[in-house]
Amino acid sequence: MKKLNTISLNEIRLTDDFFGKYTELVTKEIIPYQWRVLNNREPSAEKSNCIENFKIASGEAEGEFYGFVFQDTDLAKWLEAVAYSLSYEKNEELERMADQAIELIGRAQRPDGYLDTYFIIKEPEGKFTNLREGHELYTAGHFMEAAVAYYEVTGKDRLLSIMEKNADLICETFHTKVYETAVPGHQEVEIGLIRLYEATGKEKYLAMAKDFIDRRGTEPNYLIHEHEHQNWTDVFHNPDPFFPAYSQCDEPVRQQKTARGHAVRAVYMYCAMADLAAAYDDKELLDTCRTLYRNITERQMYLTGGIGSSGIYERFTVDYDLPNDRNYAESCASIGLALFCRRMAQITHETRYLETMETALYNTVLAGIAMDGKSFFYVNPLEVVPEFCMDFSSIGHVKPVRQKWFGCACCPPNIARTLASLGAYLCFTEEKAVYLNLHVSCSFSATISGKTVRFSVKTRMPFYGETELSVDNPEQTSGTVFIRIPAYAKDPLLQCDEGEVMKTDAGIYAAVPLTKELKTIRLRFSMPAEYVYADPQVRADVGKVAVKKGPLVYAMEEADNGKNLAAFFADTGIQPKEVFEKELLGGTMTLLVEGWRLLRGDGESGLYRIVRPERERTSARLIPYCYWNNRQPGEMLVWMREA
Amino acid sequence: MKKLNTISLNEIRLTDDFFGKYTELVTKEIIPYQWRVLNNREPSAEKSNCIENFKIASGEAEGEFYGFVFQDTDLAKWLEAVAYSLSYEKNEELERMADQAIELIGRAQRPDGYLDTYFIIKEPEGKFTNLREGHELYTAGHFMEAAVAYYEVTGKDRLLSIMEKNADLICETFHTKVYETAVPGHQEVEIGLIRLYEATGKEKYLAMAKDFIDRRGTEPNYLIHEHEHQNWTDVFHNPDPFFPAYSQCDEPVRQQKTARGHAVRAVYMYCAMADLAAAYDDKELLDTCRTLYRNITERQMYLTGGIGSSGIYERFTVDYDLPNDRNYAESCASIGLALFCRRMAQITHETRYLETMETALYNTVLAGIAMDGKSFFYVNPLEVVPEFCMDFSSIGHVKPVRQKWFGCACCPPNIARTLASLGAYLCFTEEKAVYLNLHVSCSFSATISGKTVRFSVKTRMPFYGETELSVDNPEQTSGTVFIRIPAYAKDPLLQCDEGEVMKTDAGIYAAVPLTKELKTIRLRFSMPAEYVYADPQVRADVGKVAVKKGPLVYAMEEADNGKNLAAFFADTGIQPKEVFEKELLGGTMTLLVEGWRLLRGDGESGLYRIVRPERERTSARLIPYCYWNNRQPGEMLVWMREA
Repeated sequence: MKKLNTISLNEIRLTDDFFGKYTELVTKEIIPYQWRVLNNREPSAEKSNCIENFKIASGEAEGEFYGFVFQDTDLAKWLEAVAYSLSYEKNEELERMADQAIELIGRAQRPDGYLDTYFIIKEPEGKFTNLREGHELYTAGHFMEAAVAYYEVTGKDRLLSIMEKNADLICETFHTKVYETAVPGHQEVEIGLIRLYEATGKEKYLAMAKDFIDRRGTEPNYLIHEHEHQNWTDVFHNPDPFFPAYSQCDEPVRQQKTARGHAVRAVYMYCAMADLAAAYDDKELLDTCRTLYRNITERQMYLTGGIGSSGIYERFTVDYDLPNDRNYAESCASIGLALFCRRMAQITHETRYLETMETALYNTVLAGIAMDGKSFFYVNPLEVVPEFCMDFSSIGHVKPVRQKWFGCACCPPNIARTLASLGAYLCFTEEKAVYLNLHVSCSFSATISGKTVRFSVKTRMPFYGETELSVDNPEQTSGTVFIRIPAYAKDPLLQCDEGEVMKTDAGIYAAVPLTKELKTIRLRFSMPAEYVYADPQVRADVGKVAVKKGPLVYAMEEADNGKNLAAFFADTGIQPKEVFEKELLGGTMTLLVEGWRLLRGDGESGLYRIVRPERERTSARLIPYCYWNNRQPGEMLVWMREA
Repeated sequence: MKKLNTISLNEIRLTDDFFGKYTELVTKEIIPYQWRVLNNREPSAEKSNCIENFKIASGEAEGEFYGFVFQDTDLAKWLEAVAYSLSYEKNEELERMADQAIELIGRAQRPDGYLDTYFIIKEPEGKFTNLREGHELYTAGHFMEAAVAYYEVTGKDRLLSIMEKNADLICETFHTKVYETAVPGHQEVEIGLIRLYEATGKEKYLAMAKDFIDRRGTEPNYLIHEHEHQNWTDVFHNPDPFFPAYSQCDEPVRQQKTARGHAVRAVYMYCAMADLAAAYDDKELLDTCRTLYRNITERQMYLTGGIGSSGIYERFTVDYDLPNDRNYAESCASIGLALFCRRMAQITHETRYLETMETALYNTVLAGIAMDGKSFFYVNPLEVVPEFCMDFSSIGHVKPVRQKWFGCACCPPNIARTLASLGAYLCFTEEKAVYLNLHVSCSFSATISGKTVRFSVKTRMPFYGETELSVDNPEQTSGTVFIRIPAYAKDPLLQCDEGEVMKTDAGIYAAVPLTKELKTIRLRFSMPAEYVYADPQVRADVGKVAVKKGPLVYAMEEADNGKNLAAFFADTGIQPKEVFEKELLGGTMTLLVEGWRLLRGDGESGLYRIVRPERERTSARLIPYCYWNNRQPGEMLVWMREA
């Protein structure tokens, strides 16, 4: 297997209208805000204590550990986001703060390499005695990712050494007799170890990740029996009770055919599986990845790229169980899905994975963050009636408005690191080729056939199907440019410089040879808004339609359409009208859908009546799903009834 | 206010095809089964330990308390059901067992009248220190109801004296300084105290019930601050965290305009409020009852009479929040609603309350019990896909099949006592009149104008609109017979003996003078199956229809219609065809609904596609909702899409 490379973030600049505002938010808003949070200096957020925990662990402060057992990961994700942010904008002060934080981490680390402030402070005898929920390996994985990111962008290897020392301890510990069948309860360290291997070349890290995957779900099943061990430490009840499928340890990994259990744990594991399949040329493992991908995308994924439909246990349930109003679809799970799809595309060179990656990024991931960068969705419903989302009810987990920084702050920093590293999703490189994955304006350089080639991408996506890729130094070039023609592109046409306009297929990478003459490749396609139907086995969507335009799923909001969006019936005989609204939500394409709306009636007819409610002709305005809840709070609806 | 009387159960005999099978189940199956359960002699049920707890409390056995804090109520509800059962079938052995159990209760009671085995055994210092969840008053209320029932049917007053002594202690305790603002966390003792007052004439019991209602939700709010008391005992976390509306103590009772909180607690309280309104001629309290009734039935009730839509906290949520697949609609809540409606009808003489009572009894309450009496629904969804009802998921509380006797056995014995006391719902009496509420075959006698009159009711309901009421000793009679003409009756016609056939209105009590000549009153009406629409504000039902025929809501089942019931679209232009199926489910009217069904497609089209799924013409067979899940497990659906 020939795995394509992601581009170094130092080599790419985002110049995109659609995404640029988000990546700017990360630098200007989120990173400084989170730094204040980490230091307990942000009154609008719940107390984090993260930095303080490190100070206590290093002996520089006194006090009790505060926060979740995985509190340290807030700092890890912050450092990773900082690294990515520094790649597109130098910021000496920020880098200085990051360096100081890294030094503090180093001082908190135990001489043997152990690093986890919860256990260092609170349960010094308890390390690695609760893998199911102790989260030490999960935390380690995030610090490994941060370490590699920081090293790649800044060239500084302090955090890298800290995490190598930690990884050495893990490799040693988890090959001792006691731990020879052990695996982490929350997957993530596998990704971290693989990244560390890629940065350092130390194969034992890769081998450790492989062992964790190969051990999982096999007998004797460490996670199932862990709490019977004499030295088991009771740290955190999430979930209670534990069931093996929750942690994907109910079956050997290679035998798993359906996505199950906690969605974030699942997709993080699939990422590692894909990496390992490529690293070991392991076709069986790759086949498992393909099977799981198909199960997710053909049976368990929302139109918006959301996954994990149960609020309780934040988990996958069963095929076609995709309720719109009580779902979970955690932002972090869609991030993990995008990471998995990126890896699958790198390995297989198949654009189908990019379609899913794009869906997740443009819809669920972007919906996760407010347009002012100050609040976040953890849970991503497709239908909301704010009054129904009561605390102390069966849909108390669904929040009708984005939340400020939480005590359990997994999603916001995860969204931040994803947006900050968007460049890694945009294109791939290999020795003799470059691959453009997403239609996002940017400039980047890549080494092709030994020469550095500079490219610029200008696009009118996601609202219009026009992309122009320019080669800024054509005299250097040879090799191939692969441009992804999205599956939703209608009648795509390619033109190289002033040459012939050529038809191309959709849903592929179109190959264009790089020549010394080639300056510009122009891609045009139409991308009308389309009504979408779900498989009739998705009970929740029967009799309903959604609207998609290109990568964007659209939604009705109360702000445009008044209350009770459910009473609207779309007339799918009429094509949605596309209207670009310059003043709305920073400028966006809206859609006008014709239809009918049930009248409420006279209020005298009772809750149930034998007379069909009357209806009136009307139209509904739809906005991109990712922009919902950026005006006043109110109802939102993706799947409309079809008239 | 002139409150009508319920009939003494000793004066009524059920002879009904539709209900008879259920009341027989209570005597033949449920009461003996539960007795074995109470005595830990039934291997198919979870251990109860109820009798053993009483033995330990009385010093006759050694051991630990086992079960929930309200475990004693299992025995109370059993005794109440036994009492009702003895009213229509003498059974010396059963009565002997009941008498022995009552003696045991007497021996377990403390000298001061205190009675609750949990606290006697486990927390002897903790009595009345956790009213929020201690359930002692709730338990007392159930024993008071049982005591009165047993006394009324058998004439034996042993349990009555035990509970008078207990009630005396409660009246004394809850007028001391410490408890002068205290109220029970789970309402029920109010009903019990009122029943005890009715049986004994002791007004202090009535006054105590009134105090509990008047105190509730007022400052200082005892329940809110209870856990701050020094002697608070931590017994049971249900729910955790506590919020005042859960126990209806967030506002003074008379100011409450919407049903809120735990549904069973709410409706039990409304029962007591209605009783007190009548007893004290308290129009304000009656208005509150009317307001709460209207809120429930016009905004928070399922078509089936289910209430309390949230599985978490078993609670009411907000107006129009009536999801069909993740709802709770506990059997006990519908029983409480029927009890409340019966009281409201007794007080106001308005049949509207009987419509709701009938809906709850014929649909949710009957659905709660299997036709073999061996399994029970606690939760009553209107739409079930068994695969989706996974444990460890957001709808883990919805069970696709009825459950065996649980550890927390609130619903089965509650259903048993309700069915056993059905006579109390069928008719009311007053000095000069008798009221026929439900069209159920039975015979009964009532004292009217000082004379005992014997009546027989023969009906073809609920499948055909034909009822005949005969006066068996007409020479005695004078006064009035009021026959409820159901609101769903079309073109109702009344005929007295061979006299003129007269039109009457529907949704009223039709008054017929009793004369010395009158032998028979015949009522006929048509009652076609009808498509029903919900108020468009019920988001879950927009674009859907249900089918009702008379009091019965109908449902599709997988057993008749295959998988994916959601894919069926009813053609409401065609009237459902009524077919009586003699062999099906003991003989039932079924309905054939014409319509279309979406085809699954070729499986190659993906989870989401731009082509509308094709459909084929088909018809669906519907059975009464109360009979669902009596064949193989499978999907069930009440609200069908409308084509």
